[in-house]
Amino acid sequence: MYQRQEGRRNSMVRAGIIGATGYAGAELVRLLLNHRDAEIRWYGSKSYIEKKYAGVYGNMFRLVEDVCRGDDLKELSKEVDVIFTATPQGYLASILNEEILSECRVIDLSADYRIKDVSVYEEWYKLEHKSPELIKEAVYGLCEINREKIKGARLIANPGCYTTCSILSIYPLLKECLITKDSIIIDAKSGVSGAGRGAKVNNLYCEVNENMKAYGVLTHRHTPEIEEQLSYAAGEDLKVMFTPHLAPMNRGILVTAYAQLNGEVSGKDLREAYLKYYGSERFIRVLDEGVCPETKWVEASNFFDVNAMADKRTGRAVIMGALDNLVKGAAGQAVQNMNIIFGLEETEGLEAVPVFP
Amino acid sequence: MYQRQEGRRNSMVRAGIIGATGYAGAELVRLLLNHRDAEIRWYGSKSYIEKKYAGVYGNMFRLVEDVCRGDDLKELSKEVDVIFTATPQGYLASILNEEILSECRVIDLSADYRIKDVSVYEEWYKLEHKSPELIKEAVYGLCEINREKIKGARLIANPGCYTTCSILSIYPLLKECLITKDSIIIDAKSGVSGAGRGAKVNNLYCEVNENMKAYGVLTHRHTPEIEEQLSYAAGEDLKVMFTPHLAPMNRGILVTAYAQLNGEVSGKDLREAYLKYYGSERFIRVLDEGVCPETKWVEASNFFDVNAMADKRTGRAVIMGALDNLVKGAAGQAVQNMNIIFGLEETEGLEAVPVFP
Amino acid sequence: MYQRQEGRRNSMVRAGIIGATGYAGAELVRLLLNHRDAEIRWYGSKSYIEKKYAGVYGNMFRLVEDVCRGDDLKELSKEVDVIFTATPQGYLASILNEEILSECRVIDLSADYRIKDVSVYEEWYKLEHKSPELIKEAVYGLCEINREKIKGARLIANPGCYTTCSILSIYPLLKECLITKDSIIIDAKSGVSGAGRGAKVNNLYCEVNENMKAYGVLTHRHTPEIEEQLSYAAGEDLKVMFTPHLAPMNRGILVTAYAQLNGEVSGKDLREAYLKYYGSERFIRVLDEGVCPETKWVEASNFFDVNAMADKRTGRAVIMGALDNLVKGAAGQAVQNMNIIFGLEETEGLEAVPVFP
Amino acid sequence: MYQRQEGRRNSMVRAGIIGATGYAGAELVRLLLNHRDAEIRWYGSKSYIEKKYAGVYGNMFRLVEDVCRGDDLKELSKEVDVIFTATPQGYLASILNEEILSECRVIDLSADYRIKDVSVYEEWYKLEHKSPELIKEAVYGLCEINREKIKGARLIANPGCYTTCSILSIYPLLKECLITKDSIIIDAKSGVSGAGRGAKVNNLYCEVNENMKAYGVLTHRHTPEIEEQLSYAAGEDLKVMFTPHLAPMNRGILVTAYAQLNGEVSGKDLREAYLKYYGSERFIRVLDEGVCPETKWVEASNFFDVNAMADKRTGRAVIMGALDNLVKGAAGQAVQNMNIIFGLEETEGLEAVPVFP
Repeated sequence: MYQRQEGRRNSMVRAGIIGATGYAGAELVRLLLNHRDAEIRWYGSKSYIEKKYAGVYGNMFRLVEDVCRGDDLKELSKEVDVIFTATPQGYLASILNEEILSECRVIDLSADYRIKDVSVYEEWYKLEHKSPELIKEAVYGLCEINREKIKGARLIANPGCYTTCSILSIYPLLKECLITKDSIIIDAKSGVSGAGRGAKVNNLYCEVNENMKAYGVLTHRHTPEIEEQLSYAAGEDLKVMFTPHLAPMNRGILVTAYAQLNGEVSGKDLREAYLKYYGSERFIRVLDEGVCPETKWVEASNFFDVNAMADKRTGRAVIMGALDNLVKGAAGQAVQNMNIIFGLEETEGLEAVPVFP
Repeated sequence: MYQRQEGRRNSMVRAGIIGATGYAGAELVRLLLNHRDAEIRWYGSKSYIEKKYAGVYGNMFRLVEDVCRGDDLKELSKEVDVIFTATPQGYLASILNEEILSECRVIDLSADYRIKDVSVYEEWYKLEHKSPELIKEAVYGLCEINREKIKGARLIANPGCYTTCSILSIYPLLKECLITKDSIIIDAKSGVSGAGRGAKVNNLYCEVNENMKAYGVLTHRHTPEIEEQLSYAAGEDLKVMFTPHLAPMNRGILVTAYAQLNGEVSGKDLREAYLKYYGSERFIRVLDEGVCPETKWVEASNFFDVNAMADKRTGRAVIMGALDNLVKGAAGQAVQNMNIIFGLEETEGLEAVPVFP
Repeated sequence: MYQRQEGRRNSMVRAGIIGATGYAGAELVRLLLNHRDAEIRWYGSKSYIEKKYAGVYGNMFRLVEDVCRGDDLKELSKEVDVIFTATPQGYLASILNEEILSECRVIDLSADYRIKDVSVYEEWYKLEHKSPELIKEAVYGLCEINREKIKGARLIANPGCYTTCSILSIYPLLKECLITKDSIIIDAKSGVSGAGRGAKVNNLYCEVNENMKAYGVLTHRHTPEIEEQLSYAAGEDLKVMFTPHLAPMNRGILVTAYAQLNGEVSGKDLREAYLKYYGSERFIRVLDEGVCPETKWVEASNFFDVNAMADKRTGRAVIMGALDNLVKGAAGQAVQNMNIIFGLEETEGLEAVPVFP
Repeated sequence: MYQRQEGRRNSMVRAGIIGATGYAGAELVRLLLNHRDAEIRWYGSKSYIEKKYAGVYGNMFRLVEDVCRGDDLKELSKEVDVIFTATPQGYLASILNEEILSECRVIDLSADYRIKDVSVYEEWYKLEHKSPELIKEAVYGLCEINREKIKGARLIANPGCYTTCSILSIYPLLKECLITKDSIIIDAKSGVSGAGRGAKVNNLYCEVNENMKAYGVLTHRHTPEIEEQLSYAAGEDLKVMFTPHLAPMNRGILVTAYAQLNGEVSGKDLREAYLKYYGSERFIRVLDEGVCPETKWVEASNFFDVNAMADKRTGRAVIMGALDNLVKGAAGQAVQNMNIIFGLEETEGLEAVPVFP
């Protein structure tokens, strides 16, 4: 294997990935291979134990020589400083415990610790939560909002892809009371990688290509996660209407959200709210006036692009945000969380310029 | 050229197409070539005069031997029974007159005669209307809504693609007072063929592929057209928020619309309204409960698929409609209008089963 | 369900489809629904017995009300005049017998009866052939080449998609001795629908999209089928090199073939050979000089487009052919075979103009 | 603008780009922004003078604050250490001179100095070469083959995308006399970005999507470039048949080449030749036996993946290579050339892991 230690620093953060052969897991690998302060020690994948990782993902040929290992969290926790879990809902909750958390940090890309009210989790996910006692400790890893809390966290609930895009799009407008809290409608469009690498007819090329459709209408599991976080922003409970759509592309989420303007609010007011909260953020780009976000402009990067306009005719705001679901919407944000936790440069490993075209 | 007269009947409707080399024009050709009661007499295209039509569209090789002709509407009107105009905004308004209309019917795929209030047209299209006196006579060719008026019409304003999809999705719900009139938000996703065949950087493969974006936010010209027609349905003026998006696919429009439910309205109520208005329509399919329309299911066909759900949590309806922008959203509806005008079987030439995958 | 009997004639051919829920089966349904002289009596699908066919293919909603039935060939044979089998390799061979063939015609879209030498079949397909006694009777259903034999056939071996495209591209040049028989190299590019509707990771959207690759190199099962048919054309045995590729599109096969010119052969000679064999064929279009076939120009149609050029620099021919793998490469050719067998108009149900864009 | 100097070293190579708003130019920008030893001083673009570069490429928003400048090579040469020219054929040849070359290095991504025999250039490009005296000095910048010559070069002729992929695929097999020199057939498939960002109907989304076609058959300009380099490898002149195809994807070239095996040559022999020449190369990956290259596995990276198989049945080799046309096929190789010239780490700025999916 190639040695790419040049430029790497002394005390590398040792990382393990459970679920390394899913798309989010593979994106973690991609990002961590270019991270100068971290190294992957463990590629966990129940489905491919003892198989070469590069045989599962041809792009990793000659970059990763390791074979996949299982998912023994206890054993793993002793070999690494941080574990990323990109596993099915309910899995981590069923095996995580104090012993593991005392050994290493855990950044969970599943939804198991995202929702504080366990009954809400169980209702939307149709699962019994097996470690509700750990929910309280978990920090919701939306870096730009919860940076300070993340620093000391042992357990990070890494936000969902739709969720990150939706919350970051709307958060400043609610905090500044520019929109009314019960008028929020989120129409989201996602690339197909969000559906994972499972072999399902619905995700076959011919079923998805040249096709647009809504799915999970009224019932998508990211709804309560968005509601909880936006309720914090509003200072009181709120409900949103959230409609996800599948778009024929590999990556990217575009959120178009609508909300009632709170009185005489202008487009300038909306943009100033974004700049107030995000003006100094590296990974959030408030686009110039009148410019609409495009998913291709953030592809393969950790950027989140946002903008909004005010419509005098109807008294509503049109709010638009775009990110790469596998990066800022999953693995990139997870690495950003790792950087914050370990006191590394927050941007390390995440500086890649978006790929266009 | 192949003779495919077998099965054709005696008195063929003679048709001419102005703008035959745009995508909508080419789709008219495709449909009319399989129409047993009509024949194309004139392929008009200023850009390709004297060039073989099949040299512009390779799919027509051996099916069309004609060369393109110009756009002399006066001359043309004497050779045909009906003229289809698939021309830039303002063009037809600048040349249409009583003399031409006394010779033949005109089905206009541009927006020139769609909006009754000429000042609204001029404001949104930034054009001076050159024949406002003809607007009153024009019948808005939304077949399922205006069938009776279409029968006697000399001039049809063929609806826009976004417009057809939006109006047909919402019309019955407004007529039955199931949604409140000022709460309508339309989030539409369109394939790229809607942007036409003009050579623009924005429509290059690499700019559009793997990309989703909103465009024309707050200013898209189909807005007033939708508002006018839905106002008729509501019985009073209303405004809608309309946001079009470009999706990486050739064909198809998916409308996801949102509106406040008018009191205690159930999903069943919504679906019954559709069945009341569309239950016996050949080209409108009210999907089974819980089934979301997909653009691929109507591709290359004249079908419009629709469904809606009621959300008790937020008190809103989610309304979904899908059509092929070049067929039911343009050329197919134009042919349907022709069939109605000339007393032909309304489905003639439009029976093709959607192509999947 | 809609009644579309208008225009239909008296003695309809009654058809059954085994494997109706695969892509080729669904394409048979699409074509037969628009066929004026045939009707579908049986939708066979082991995986979806008792399920509504339109629930499996949303495009068929309101067009097909039937539920899927099983695959009892014996029972089925008594209800229909023709059975189409779009089934996995080896299946039909294991159940077909004289009793069934005495009841109705069978048009087999699998490979079971395409290869005359059963040992060649068993070697390439790694299967034991269960009814080798029927191979001799089977007629290879390449309509333009074997039309006369097809007329009386009870059992049609409908050619493969790559095979149809490859043979039709090369056949006239071999017959006319314009190329040398052992120099043929076929580089084929196929859309993804050729891989069927099975839920496999390899055919997921994200695996195939934005990707080109060769597969089955040196071992693809269509190789011996091409070789057998081209050997007939050459009058002696030959071998070809055949390399299939997967292209990110739903439909279409493009064959680019290369062969040594047999002496001083010009591009004109090549084109004249095509015109000699195909000049009066409805579904084969010999393109104008210098025009390269494009898969989009034949999409959703039964056309096969072909052209060739002679390269003086290298003494080779570049041969190009394009078809829609689901139509001329599968279901369309099967319907064409049905038309020939039953003495119907050969083009009936197959007149659709290619869909572009 | 963000300061990303952290990690950068003292003496930065100052770079200028002429043609910075084409796709290859934009890829240079993307790569150089992540290069720790180089910085861009000049974004040249005649079409967008005085316009913000990030307004032309939205992915660069907040990453590039500069406005575009013109193409005054003389002025530019005094401000930078190296000029990249991604300009139309013939342009650089018309303005380059000794004065400029004495000021700075020039890496030319056009074809102007790739072909040693000026008459061959003029015949294939239909252009008069305006500075033939500089051709001799130019070094053909195929890094893995000409590394030593590149080190001292003032003027680099950066290879074409098809060319790089074709030559690297075939070179070792010719050097080792494993294939016969006059039997080479190259069937190449390219993504659309290779066609550039010019606004042409042929490159519109709807024309290219869901479509495969050959183009430039027998006449493509990369042919003589391939022939010249492969002739060096063979030690004598040879001719190849080269057929490019357009595939519906943004990036990537897949070459499938065919050649007669030179006697009893096995697949193992072929692979050993690759390993002999490329075994220690960072950017060339000889895939495991039986594995076919896929363009997606090298996307957005500087890797070139290669493999070959020997077919006993026909006595031929099937040779397969894949690269990203904008990286290893253009900007990446140009940066690699810069690294070699200036004695930087050859992999600097080019370490990105391929993006999948």
